[in-house]
Amino acid sequence: MEKLQVVPLGGLGEVGKNMMALEYGRNVLIVDVGMMFPESDMPGVDYIIPDYRYLKGKEDRIRGVVITHGHEDHIGALPHFLQEFNMPVYATKLTRGLIEVKLNRDLQKRVKLQPMEPGDTVRLGPFTVEPYHVCHSIPDAVGLGIDTPLGLVVHSGDYKMDHTPVDGRPSDIAKLAEFNQRGVLALFADSTNADQPGTTPSESSLNAALADVFHQAKGRVIVATFASLISRIQQVMDVARSFGRKVAIAGTTMVKNVKMARRLGYLNVPDDLILSLQDINRLPPHQVTIMATGAQGEPRSIMGRLAIGRHPSLRVVPGDTVVLSSHTIPGNEEVVHRVINRLFQKGANVVYHPIAPVHVSGHASQEEQKMLLNILRPKFFVPIHGELRHLKQHALLAQETGIPRQNIAVVENGHILRFSSDSLEVGERIPGGYVFVDGALVGDAVSPQVILDRESLAVAGVCSVVFSYNRRQGAVIGEPRVTARGLATAEVLDDLTERAQPVVRNTVQATRGSAAPDEVERAVERAVSNFFYEQVQSRPEMIVVAVPLG
Amino acid sequence: MEKLQVVPLGGLGEVGKNMMALEYGRNVLIVDVGMMFPESDMPGVDYIIPDYRYLKGKEDRIRGVVITHGHEDHIGALPHFLQEFNMPVYATKLTRGLIEVKLNRDLQKRVKLQPMEPGDTVRLGPFTVEPYHVCHSIPDAVGLGIDTPLGLVVHSGDYKMDHTPVDGRPSDIAKLAEFNQRGVLALFADSTNADQPGTTPSESSLNAALADVFHQAKGRVIVATFASLISRIQQVMDVARSFGRKVAIAGTTMVKNVKMARRLGYLNVPDDLILSLQDINRLPPHQVTIMATGAQGEPRSIMGRLAIGRHPSLRVVPGDTVVLSSHTIPGNEEVVHRVINRLFQKGANVVYHPIAPVHVSGHASQEEQKMLLNILRPKFFVPIHGELRHLKQHALLAQETGIPRQNIAVVENGHILRFSSDSLEVGERIPGGYVFVDGALVGDAVSPQVILDRESLAVAGVCSVVFSYNRRQGAVIGEPRVTARGLATAEVLDDLTERAQPVVRNTVQATRGSAAPDEVERAVERAVSNFFYEQVQSRPEMIVVAVPLG
Repeated sequence: MEKLQVVPLGGLGEVGKNMMALEYGRNVLIVDVGMMFPESDMPGVDYIIPDYRYLKGKEDRIRGVVITHGHEDHIGALPHFLQEFNMPVYATKLTRGLIEVKLNRDLQKRVKLQPMEPGDTVRLGPFTVEPYHVCHSIPDAVGLGIDTPLGLVVHSGDYKMDHTPVDGRPSDIAKLAEFNQRGVLALFADSTNADQPGTTPSESSLNAALADVFHQAKGRVIVATFASLISRIQQVMDVARSFGRKVAIAGTTMVKNVKMARRLGYLNVPDDLILSLQDINRLPPHQVTIMATGAQGEPRSIMGRLAIGRHPSLRVVPGDTVVLSSHTIPGNEEVVHRVINRLFQKGANVVYHPIAPVHVSGHASQEEQKMLLNILRPKFFVPIHGELRHLKQHALLAQETGIPRQNIAVVENGHILRFSSDSLEVGERIPGGYVFVDGALVGDAVSPQVILDRESLAVAGVCSVVFSYNRRQGAVIGEPRVTARGLATAEVLDDLTERAQPVVRNTVQATRGSAAPDEVERAVERAVSNFFYEQVQSRPEMIVVAVPLG
Repeated sequence: MEKLQVVPLGGLGEVGKNMMALEYGRNVLIVDVGMMFPESDMPGVDYIIPDYRYLKGKEDRIRGVVITHGHEDHIGALPHFLQEFNMPVYATKLTRGLIEVKLNRDLQKRVKLQPMEPGDTVRLGPFTVEPYHVCHSIPDAVGLGIDTPLGLVVHSGDYKMDHTPVDGRPSDIAKLAEFNQRGVLALFADSTNADQPGTTPSESSLNAALADVFHQAKGRVIVATFASLISRIQQVMDVARSFGRKVAIAGTTMVKNVKMARRLGYLNVPDDLILSLQDINRLPPHQVTIMATGAQGEPRSIMGRLAIGRHPSLRVVPGDTVVLSSHTIPGNEEVVHRVINRLFQKGANVVYHPIAPVHVSGHASQEEQKMLLNILRPKFFVPIHGELRHLKQHALLAQETGIPRQNIAVVENGHILRFSSDSLEVGERIPGGYVFVDGALVGDAVSPQVILDRESLAVAGVCSVVFSYNRRQGAVIGEPRVTARGLATAEVLDDLTERAQPVVRNTVQATRGSAAPDEVERAVERAVSNFFYEQVQSRPEMIVVAVPLG
């Protein structure tokens, strides 16, 4: 009998760029096409997308893409993917709104964004997709029941078991129980918080913390969060209103998202609550709230620019209260802390986790993860969405709930999983690494080696040596030009590069007559590099150009 | 009347490089001379030391240096400082041992390391220093009572209120109470954990967690921690012994420190417990424990090399249990998580915080900080040892204990504080920034601008353009040499640099006759940079060299 193949293309062994392909016969179904933010040792990289070369040549087999929710790590690579692959994209209403904002005109015309709501049954080849509502830090998120010829597969999406969510719609436990009744072949579940014991606090637990901040604030309140955290935006608006404040939005994406979410009915905001950014000075500070992007401290974001005083119209002033209402993405701690310190320097009161409980995670913690496992009681379990350490921990939790170890597959991107109705095997590994996006350079144009080259340049800078020489006599003509960047200060460099000139001259002389120009260049490269190392224990990257004359 | 000046030279507005000067008349006393680890956006920097230019020209007034304990952020810059300043250094026994290991032969001969023990009274000019025992994550740590002509000043050092410390010696609360009786003019206290509510768990709470790990481990146990965490080393040795295991030490500094601490009586370890690294394969895995450095994931450390399989003799194999028993320094999260993931890939079971409580902080949390404030009841309070956000939070705690806001000074490095017996004012600011150490380059040789240059190089790489040209005709002779590094992959670059050649030729032609060589270079720099931006939306750093002929 035909097997069901599941190919994790992203999000397994990392946090971000979630993407998965399910294959049965000559049919492929794709779940999510996300992007990932670069780590701090990936200079110049704008973001990272999944390596989906595996799907090349299978274009005509792909029945569609199903999106679980509208966060960047689930939709962010769609603009790239849809340039190459032409197919319908199924998503809930708010998610479609967020995708549409990201697509350029050509794609907006060409791509079919198909509606899909909890309770729907979407037939895509041999797959029947049954989206069900889940709570997450964005409305309109779904998990997926996917009926296949071999049995029912459940993909959790990103979820938490919030019993008092802001929009009043808890995760659909009844649907999960129904899946259990029908029997679940395999569960693929979110592992992001697998190292967090207990239960993630409810989104509505923030109301008290936010009210307390507003209660104590004497001046303006500036709240920074993610542009896509629509329910957080709702909460801040509600609290602001209850304290008699107006709300201005700063940040292009957040402005767009608020507009779109209001239009689609996902934000319930009276018109007179909204204040334009230009008008904030017309009200006394205690009547003003500003919502802004940049809670990760991104230098070009609103908060990043406010922290260094580089925003064109806004200034943080003593008396302001700044609330960072978002989780710090691992690796961003330094930058975020720097922003906090700079805001304090400007006289603001800064409120952030753990000083005050002004953020809660959107992901299930251990007890919720075990609850999901117990409700579904799947035959097979595959932890997804997390670094290997999260996947391993999630696998341990699954074992604790009674799933036998051999029925759990802990794999990183690219390991093909093959299911029959009573077996799971881990097959060969296809590519599943990083595809870097740097401006117009994508993928093969900016490889991991290029990133390593950039890091080498950063460690000790670069030194260029240019000289003309008489090839037969091995004599340098005129002065060698030695230029260095990023090695040391100008004063130190002036002295060093001047003293490097005789090193160049002597090295060229030693090669007299016998050497080809590229050999002369290599000899000079070695000699000058050694000179720097002797002098300052650093080896800048060398670019040597010999201009042979005569 | 003469005022008491306190000059924070490091550790205020940052975590690390702690250093402070107290001045009364023509007398200076220095407390701690620490170093700091670079952040991830300081490529090539080995470490950072305080800017102590303020002390230049005051050499003959300095009565001595007093060290609170032997961690790098309190002693690490001593080798640099003592090269320039010749003076006695006072420290407890273990601290002296750790300093001695760091000094080169010349300094070991020249510098007088003076004994100082809790209960001693050390007179240094008008200052009388009274060290008292505190618990921290290293034995032999002290806080300091410093009697001055204007009143008693207390410097907390790094401390926690551990009631069940591993060495059986809790922080000396009786001495603090005595200080209170005598009246405390000012308290300078550790703010590192000012954002942590509650009480820091006792060091001995680790015993249960470690025992549980050893109990479950079937193969070898590898414990990574800081080389200077002597009490942690003691705990691991004790637990290992109780489970019938021997202990091998990996890492030069840890080997040195263990040897020194055993010699001085700070590690209680029977000879037959210690195993040499060469002999570990002679015992069955369940009888082996390895203690190693590199819990911060430093690439050249033991754990860093084990994670990528580059250690000359050790390999991590399935069945090994790896314990990371240390706090992750903010900014190192990514690197540490990568190490954890790689160890999992090698089949090890990795135990780390928060998966298991295998580390506790050495710093007081909020309730302990308030306790210290309440025991001492100082007139003035200055939070030290922390980023601005920690200092601000610590100041709030002090206000909660009843210290009036105007008696608290929250300042960053370099702000001179002037005390009389009943006043505190914040004076002018002297330099207190970063002094970078990069190989043999120190301070002025490697400025913040150099670091920014390095970062620019990393973002888009570098491009060198070299061409000979006939100045009068404005004609390039031969082919321009266009070389780029770190911009894109070789295939992309070959194409780009070839297509940049006519850009160079045309630009030179356009300047015909009229332009000086440096103007020609600038024109080519602009043109080629624009070319790259059009082509790939990146601007590499440009180094253009024109060789004018004729």
